[in-house]
Amino acid sequence: MITAPRKRSMRKRVLVVHVHPEPASLNGALKDAAVRALHALGHEVIVSDLYAMGFKAVADAQDFAQRVDPERLYYASESEHALDTGTQRADVAEEQRKLLWADAVILQFPLWWFGPPAMLKGWIDRVFVRGFAYGVRAPGESIATLRYGEGLLLGRRAMVSVTTGAPHAHFGARGISGALDDLLFPLQHGVLFYTGMSVLPPFAVHAANHLGPGDWPAIEAAYGQRLASLFTDAPIRYRMQNGGHYDERQVLRPGLGAGETGPRVHIVQHGDPPERAPRALPTTRRPAG
Amino acid sequence: MITAPRKRSMRKRVLVVHVHPEPASLNGALKDAAVRALHALGHEVIVSDLYAMGFKAVADAQDFAQRVDPERLYYASESEHALDTGTQRADVAEEQRKLLWADAVILQFPLWWFGPPAMLKGWIDRVFVRGFAYGVRAPGESIATLRYGEGLLLGRRAMVSVTTGAPHAHFGARGISGALDDLLFPLQHGVLFYTGMSVLPPFAVHAANHLGPGDWPAIEAAYGQRLASLFTDAPIRYRMQNGGHYDERQVLRPGLGAGETGPRVHIVQHGDPPERAPRALPTTRRPAG
Repeated sequence: MITAPRKRSMRKRVLVVHVHPEPASLNGALKDAAVRALHALGHEVIVSDLYAMGFKAVADAQDFAQRVDPERLYYASESEHALDTGTQRADVAEEQRKLLWADAVILQFPLWWFGPPAMLKGWIDRVFVRGFAYGVRAPGESIATLRYGEGLLLGRRAMVSVTTGAPHAHFGARGISGALDDLLFPLQHGVLFYTGMSVLPPFAVHAANHLGPGDWPAIEAAYGQRLASLFTDAPIRYRMQNGGHYDERQVLRPGLGAGETGPRVHIVQHGDPPERAPRALPTTRRPAG
Repeated sequence: MITAPRKRSMRKRVLVVHVHPEPASLNGALKDAAVRALHALGHEVIVSDLYAMGFKAVADAQDFAQRVDPERLYYASESEHALDTGTQRADVAEEQRKLLWADAVILQFPLWWFGPPAMLKGWIDRVFVRGFAYGVRAPGESIATLRYGEGLLLGRRAMVSVTTGAPHAHFGARGISGALDDLLFPLQHGVLFYTGMSVLPPFAVHAANHLGPGDWPAIEAAYGQRLASLFTDAPIRYRMQNGGHYDERQVLRPGLGAGETGPRVHIVQHGDPPERAPRALPTTRRPAG
């Protein structure tokens, strides 16, 4: 079968991080729709259903069985030590393994107070530790860390799938809530792109509380369409830290970002100088045990 | 004593919401410095030390002793019902009482992944419920809700006091992290201003992990200076929802926000038409029991 290898190469691994306390919610339906659509496309899927798992959302001293410094908790140091010594909490290590396993990561959540629910923020606070998600260095380089387009999660795609409680117009470029991309900038740029992932435009369902289950099939179908191009859609072209667009203080060089203020200055514009390619890390990934 | 009434009128009530797992951290020192400085100014202070309180950060079904709908959890409805019937969780009602008591609210936290720690986000998710922080209506008006410059927390001031792990330049208008005001927009505009509070510019200590306790006294002194003008500094001039700058779809009217894209279009510029004054709610505040 001449098509077999090609087919196999299209088989990808997708992690869906699902964050909603009610399984019968629209978010739950979108999570289920994603699993169905991705399976139908031939992909493997793992779901981290954070509420169902009772995931511990708060980063605190309980995260460390052994302490480098038993007197004063410095979370970054302790979590890196736990990563290095294989003494992380099992739930944290497991989520890191899923992230390393995945070719794409989907975050499914309701926008609460214009950001991720505490449950999702806590998943980030606890799982994205130093040495794994930040403070990652290329071999032989001791100073600058790999981030914003480089890092341990390079080569993966990420997409936010979000429901909101207000009409679409509120989330437009001049809508009162702020543009959705600006509200999601800390997550999409500051977490997902920071760790090396390529971030796709979000899939958003607005005014979700005005929708009934009768509206869901059309939404699920639209979502399935988006997922069909999960591995081919163009990512948001955030500028790489080490691509040449920032100066040595990591401030955007003059002339770039023209016509924009705010988060959008960090997106490549037509005509900008080409960026240097990201540095790949060795294939022997850091253990997440 | 002719000065006594004047002195008494300057005595204000300040709620400090403190969010850090380590009491000996810089955040802990800033919280203590705020209490000292505010007391020295003659103000009353309450501290909500969320980690020390073991505050429940995750919004879920456990928040409701009685359910309107035992089958399907709709958090907004259940939390509003609990507010209306006095059946909220004691920790939630207590935080609402503190917010109503306060003339100013300070949020003290480390910027983790470019946003509030899950603990603080959870405090917002659980305490800022419908009927209290959103979905608030003026008497006799049935449709438009009071928000963005109007609402139950009108008349209060709010200020973020934040530590970050990167140099100041990273958080400037063209810094790689995104401007601090843009990163804080979901919190400052979407939560604090949304509920009616006047939001002061943030107090920020950058590269906090490169500072030692020897650096703290100067920082605490600078913070004390800021707090001395907590009730006189000019707030960020976010545009009011009902001030006339947005159209009926709540999209910014043409001509406003010139020269800006992103969150800053929502800040009043010199020469903009004057806004209508906010509507005060009746002095009988909604019970938070």
